Amino acid sequence: MNQVIETILKHRSIRQYDDRPLTDEQIRTIVEAAQAASTSSYIQAYSIIGIKDPKKKKKLAELAGNQPYVEKNGHLLVFCADLHRHDVVAQMEGKDLTSSLESTEKFMVSLIDAALAAQNAAIAAESMGLGICYIGGLRNNLKEVAKVLRTPERVLPLFAMTIGYPLHESCKKPRLPFEHVYHEEEYEQDENRLKEQLQQYNDIIKKYYRERTGGVRNDTWTGQMAQKLSHPARMYMKEFVEKQGFNKK
Amino acid sequence: MNQVIETILKHRSIRQYDDRPLTDEQIRTIVEAAQAASTSSYIQAYSIIGIKDPKKKKKLAELAGNQPYVEKNGHLLVFCADLHRHDVVAQMEGKDLTSSLESTEKFMVSLIDAALAAQNAAIAAESMGLGICYIGGLRNNLKEVAKVLRTPERVLPLFAMTIGYPLHESCKKPRLPFEHVYHEEEYEQDENRLKEQLQQYNDIIKKYYRERTGGVRNDTWTGQMAQKLSHPARMYMKEFVEKQGFNKK
Repeated sequence: MNQVIETILKHRSIRQYDDRPLTDEQIRTIVEAAQAASTSSYIQAYSIIGIKDPKKKKKLAELAGNQPYVEKNGHLLVFCADLHRHDVVAQMEGKDLTSSLESTEKFMVSLIDAALAAQNAAIAAESMGLGICYIGGLRNNLKEVAKVLRTPERVLPLFAMTIGYPLHESCKKPRLPFEHVYHEEEYEQDENRLKEQLQQYNDIIKKYYRERTGGVRNDTWTGQMAQKLSHPARMYMKEFVEKQGFNKK
Repeated sequence: MNQVIETILKHRSIRQYDDRPLTDEQIRTIVEAAQAASTSSYIQAYSIIGIKDPKKKKKLAELAGNQPYVEKNGHLLVFCADLHRHDVVAQMEGKDLTSSLESTEKFMVSLIDAALAAQNAAIAAESMGLGICYIGGLRNNLKEVAKVLRTPERVLPLFAMTIGYPLHESCKKPRLPFEHVYHEEEYEQDENRLKEQLQQYNDIIKKYYRERTGGVRNDTWTGQMAQKLSHPARMYMKEFVEKQGFNKK
């Protein structure tokens, strides 16, 4: 196994960091790694906002659900879908690009572009001995987040990433069985087989939690998912995203 | 610079491969690397379909716009947003999860999850001396792609990735200026500054194309973008995505 794959497989979310801020050189390396990712037809439809200001971090931590590590870290990055610069392009080139920019297709492109860049940033940071955690909680209240970050129309904050020097080790939560995620030639349509795989996975997850909590937690994956997904979250999103100029047609 | 960052920065899309197929062990390593990526609240909302069958590759190549490398490669992966397994979870747990699964929020989560996994796969493959290319052309005709791959409701093929032993070197196309993509504390709202940065970038891009084509190509980035985006593409997407059970509320 080479060093790259080792780094990738070693990933765990880190939620406690010491106070050392990242240097500008470290930040630049991480962002340049992000930019090296593939981008759909060269469109580069994302931006990254780095937050150093402790007050702003505190505010974003509150908005994201009071996770202390959004406030206490070495650096905080916010990844945004960005088609605003293509509005600037439209002005510069005297073309009307509205239909493209407002399409669901370009919404998808901008999300995928941003996520590819983010994952490069994550791997680069981890290779430097730093820990990271993705913060989807940023989407709890994007209207307020957009105000804090002063994002214009056609820029949509998607998630944040905390980065810093790890203060703890953490365990890797077992992933779905390989055969359940990886299909060959076509999608496995046999629901009984899918259910069997999920049952086996539940046994693994139960064991994982029992061992780590001295028998207190006894969760299964399907139980966790059913519990979480039975309370629809962030249902303001469709309207908000359209208001920001995405996913309209 | 460590080996991981070196691998990330060395990325170029590779569009010609020799005939050697990847071994099952290589495929497994790449997929396990994909699975090691972060996932939103443990939801793991994606699947990967690997294609070995030459006939199926040929069919997908036709659907994706006749790129020969979709047919000729060492392996072809299709990354899908997948909330179908959460429908299976709903059955297993006797809960109604429809509202969550059909939300724009979970549509975004499944795209981001799939893209994070894909980028890990890309980096892992490149670290093994393989080349990769993302195939967004797969979205030219998702209805037919879904038939070929037999994907059920709540599974949405997003893009493919060709992988194989590179038959060529290729150049890295210069990315947008660091300062244009990376903002600090808040989004840069000064349109004149954004335009200046894009003009500087245009000069870099012009030089890049001139040098590589002996003066024949003289494109700018803003020119390319205006040209491409003035022809809205894949405008069936909004309706199709909803029909597959995503992005409905």
